[in-house]
Order: sequence, then structure tokens, then C-alpha cells
Amino acid sequence: MRLLEETLQQIEPLNMETINFAKRKLDLLSKPIGSLGKLEDLCMQLAGIYETIEFDLEPKVVIGFAGDHGVYEEGVARDPQWITKAQIPNFAKGVCAVGTLARFMKADIVAVDVGVKCEEALEGVLDYKIRQGTSNMAKGPAMTREEAIRSLEIGIEVAKKTVEKGYKVLAIGEMGIANTTPTSAIISVFAACEPKEVTGKGAGLSPEGILHKVEVIKKAIELNKPNKSDAIDVLSKVGGFEIGAMAGAILGAAAMRRPVVLDGFISYAAAILAKNLCETATSYMIPSHYSAEPGTVKATELLGMEPMLHLDMRLGEGSGGILVFQLLEAANYLFNHMATREDSGC
Amino acid sequence: MRLLEETLQQIEPLNMETINFAKRKLDLLSKPIGSLGKLEDLCMQLAGIYETIEFDLEPKVVIGFAGDHGVYEEGVARDPQWITKAQIPNFAKGVCAVGTLARFMKADIVAVDVGVKCEEALEGVLDYKIRQGTSNMAKGPAMTREEAIRSLEIGIEVAKKTVEKGYKVLAIGEMGIANTTPTSAIISVFAACEPKEVTGKGAGLSPEGILHKVEVIKKAIELNKPNKSDAIDVLSKVGGFEIGAMAGAILGAAAMRRPVVLDGFISYAAAILAKNLCETATSYMIPSHYSAEPGTVKATELLGMEPMLHLDMRLGEGSGGILVFQLLEAANYLFNHMATREDSGC
Repeated sequence: MRLLEETLQQIEPLNMETINFAKRKLDLLSKPIGSLGKLEDLCMQLAGIYETIEFDLEPKVVIGFAGDHGVYEEGVARDPQWITKAQIPNFAKGVCAVGTLARFMKADIVAVDVGVKCEEALEGVLDYKIRQGTSNMAKGPAMTREEAIRSLEIGIEVAKKTVEKGYKVLAIGEMGIANTTPTSAIISVFAACEPKEVTGKGAGLSPEGILHKVEVIKKAIELNKPNKSDAIDVLSKVGGFEIGAMAGAILGAAAMRRPVVLDGFISYAAAILAKNLCETATSYMIPSHYSAEPGTVKATELLGMEPMLHLDMRLGEGSGGILVFQLLEAANYLFNHMATREDSGC
Repeated sequence: MRLLEETLQQIEPLNMETINFAKRKLDLLSKPIGSLGKLEDLCMQLAGIYETIEFDLEPKVVIGFAGDHGVYEEGVARDPQWITKAQIPNFAKGVCAVGTLARFMKADIVAVDVGVKCEEALEGVLDYKIRQGTSNMAKGPAMTREEAIRSLEIGIEVAKKTVEKGYKVLAIGEMGIANTTPTSAIISVFAACEPKEVTGKGAGLSPEGILHKVEVIKKAIELNKPNKSDAIDVLSKVGGFEIGAMAGAILGAAAMRRPVVLDGFISYAAAILAKNLCETATSYMIPSHYSAEPGTVKATELLGMEPMLHLDMRLGEGSGGILVFQLLEAANYLFNHMATREDSGC
């Protein structure tokens, strides 16, 4: 609890002075004012985060957290549960989607086991296992309050260590068969809406499968009564270890004044938890893609964010977030290399 | 007219066999089927265009066409008209937005004068000037039918020549103060909607300025009565030289079996003209970003396209299209470097 409290206190607002410097610099460039839209917003946000208008975005890292879910036994996912333990080592090997994209983008990847259902050590994966998967939230809380805090603190610790190693930009990703189920539950609780409004097919459920998943989520919420004014309570009752760790990584990045790129649907739930623990942390978040899951609408409303990429992706891992790395570089390149109106004569 | 007719006849449908090869290859990769969304669609589209699943996307080029507009004299733009001639040489110099991004992306740029209001030759700009700007469409047709065909054929010629030089991917851009006015007019005609529905602030008009712009567009349409079943008629009456040339470049790229990346608002009008000249040409178009101009809604509906980037950009030049180059590379990299389910064990 100490690391969490300490971290929440470290998170400070963006530097308005450097944001204003950035705005003035952008307004001198050879283009209609504001016409680069969100690329300009990114420059200002990054200037506010780094407290300078001369920021360097290299090196970059994606942190992928993996965990399993007790609620899997309710039949809420199409894929076999062992995919979690089989796929997370592929992050580091660079052969799954996010691993392949990390090679392409020349970004590093850190893979972290926070609760994978297996005895054995996973090759290339940091071992922060809390236990072998959460409990079935349809029968009781997914985890204890202590475990929820532990998951947040693992994320904080890993994020802070990566920043200490010199990483300038972080992105978060995950692996966890069935994890759209706790995600929809978390979003349903915070949006105070019916689970059916925020529940989709995940990796590929049938229409009947989705109806069943909705019922399981309803049951879990009715049974556990998560308190939406207490994010740790929500996380412990209907969350997941990797979701808590992602929320922690966001807080850790914010405390260390680093931008943290969100991925898709699962990451939105983590971002909502982080936002509810510390509103200021949202200033450090960079949304990436608009997931194909229907809960994206409510989730991005809750976050007050408009993701930049609309690619109908529903893969997770961090595969959407990493695609934004290039946009950040493009924004920074324009910021530093475009002619001013004075120089271009326009 | 001969080059145009010949080109329209050269445009063939995508190769369904190679599209199916690509689909089968994508479905073997270590991810839920279809979960990479539009990145998978891009792989299939490119396979259908190049007629192979082993395609190379280098080198890439942005072709920027510049022209001036007689309707400028109605006070429909905020910026001075000389910006067109001052900014187009900056494409090649790499200091305006698209020029800077081209350096960043290591793409080449070809800048083409199809109707800039100036006597002098423009440094680094190909001279295909039809005349020094269109006529004022609020007083009569913007150009003759012959000039409209000439603008299309210039686009075709430039696109075909760039493909002959070895370029594998083309993007189109433009420069032309006041060119959101003919763009809104073209979209209004094809969508059969009121100009006010598809007219916005362009580079920065005031709310009163927008109302005036709407009136000018209404007047131009009422006066010239463009026939929406004849795209050349629409182009000649309420279009622009650079818009016709962009439409031609799309047709030229399609005829040469090359993907052509659209930019934002102005490029949508060109794409709608190209589509109306040859429906099959749409298979070769790749949408990029969703412009901030309100006419984007109707325009993308007419094209049946959902742009991938939502960046609230309203700069033009090709600055949105070029940002998609990286997504094409990312899609192709995943296509060729992700592990199969068999290899990854997932």
C-alpha cells in the first residue's frame, strides 16, 4: 500500500509553461494555426510531460502483463486457457503481433507474469506471479483487496524500473484469455450501465456466447457489489491481475513523468481504474486505437479520450498502442523540422 | 480525351485469387482470425492490387498538385491567394508539412503546377500549368470541358510516369488557396445535399465567413447546374485544376495497378470524381485520415470508406495520406514476420 500511496502523491499536473511554449512554437510553423490537429495536441502534451519543448522519444518500451481468470470456467471465452502461458513468452521472442510490431518499430518489450495459470517459469517473462489466476468472480471476489493492491504495485514497480533504465515512452499491453469479461464488468460498473451495453465477442464468441457472457458479468456484479467510488474495490471484485498491473504501470509512468500509451479495450479498463485512483494521471495517457469491442464507446467517454487509430482491431497485447509510436515520432519531427511561416515565406 | 479513355479501359478489378491467398495466410497467423482488422484488409487489398502476396512497398511517392481558384475573389478563403505559389515549392524543399513528413518517412515528393496564378516558373515544381487559376464558378463554369479533361489527363500522365520510374505506392496531395470551396460544391452535387451540410471553415474562416461560403457555393451550383451523372461536367463547372489532376492520378495509379493513398477533404472530392468515372478505381484507393471538415461525413459515405486516422487535421497537402505509409509497412511486416499458430504453439 505504501508504494501505491507514495506513487499517487508523486503524480503532478503537466507543466503549463512548457505547454504554452510548445503552443507558441507550433503557431509559428508554416500552416494554418491548429491545422495539424491531434499531432499538435501530442506535441503540447509531451512538452507538458517532459517539461521542455526539446524532448527525445527514444528508447520506447511496451510492457505486457499476463494473467489468467477464474471466470474462464464459466465458458466466457472461445480459446483454451493455456493460450495465456503459451503466448506471453512470444512477446519477448518477437513473434506474436505486438512482438513482431516491436521489432518493426525498434521498440523493446518487457513481458511480466502477474498471474498466469502455470507452475513453470516462462521463458523471457519476468516472474511477478501473484497466484495462478484470479478466482471466479461469478462465485465471489476475483481477488482479495491485498492482491488488488499488489497487482497495482507490481505495475508501478515495473514501470518505474523501466523509466530508471532510460525509457522515454511506455506503452501497456496484456495477455489473458477471458480478460474482456472482467474488462466489461469494470466498465459497466464505472459507467453505471447494463453489462450488455459494454460486452462483445472478445476474441471470437458466437452471438449466444455473448449473451451468456453478459449473464455471467451481471451475476458477478450483483453478487460482489463493487463500489464504484473505490477503484481498488472494483478491481478486487471484478478485475484481473494484469488489469491491475496495467493500471499500476500507468500510475508509475505518470509519477515518473513519462507518457504512457494505452492499447485497446482491456487497457481502457486499466486506464479507468488509474483515473479513479488519480485524476491527474490521465494527463500522461495517450490513447491509441478505437477497439472493435462495443464497450469502447462508454470506456472512451469515461476517459474523455478520442483514440487516433480506427482499425477495427481486437487483438490486444499492446498491438494497437505500439502503432502510435510512429505518430508520436511524426508529431515530434514536424515540431522540430517544419519551416516557420517566416522562413517559408507562407 | 484519348489518354483518359484508354486509362479507364486499363483499370481492372483486383485479383481475387491473390486476395484469397492473402486471407488464407492471414488466418494461419498466431492471432484470432480477423483480429488485426483493417491491417488485414490492407494486406488483402495490396495482394489483390499487386497480384502476389509478396509485395514490396518501396519506394513511395506523394504527388502534390497545385492550382488557384477564380472563386477566391468572392472572399471564400481567409489566406492570401499568393500562398499557393509560395507554398508549392516548399513541397519539394521538404519544409512544409507534407515535405517535412516525406523526409521523415523517406518518401519522395513530386510537386506539379496545374494552374497556379503566377507567370514565373516555380522552383522544383513540374510545369503542367493549364492556365493561371480557374474562372470564378460563382459567375460561370470554373473551366471548359476540355480543360477538365486536360486536368484529368495531367494527373494520369504524372501518375503513370511515377509508376514507370519504379514507385510502388502513390499518395496524392494538393495546394490551392480556396480549394475547400469547389470541394464542398463537388460533394454537395454528388451527395445531392445542401451545401451547408458539407461546408466548413477550411483553413480558418469565421462563422460568418462560412455562411458566405455556403451562399457562394449555392450560387455556383444553381448557376452552372452541374450534371451529377457526368463527372467531367461537375469537374468543369464547380471543380478545380488540382482536383481534376488528383482524380486523374487516382485513375492512372489504378490503371498501373498501384495503390493510391488519399489525403483528406480535397482528395475525397477527387476520389468521388474518379469513382464516378470508373467504379473499379475505388479498389485501388486507400483512405487515410478523417478530416476535420464537416463534409467528410458525406464524402466518406459516398466513397464507402472509413479512414483509419482520426487526427482532426485540416491542413491538406497530402499530410494525412503520408501518415498511412507507416501503417502499410506495419501491415506488411506483420503479414510476413508474425509466427503462424503452428510455429508459435498458440
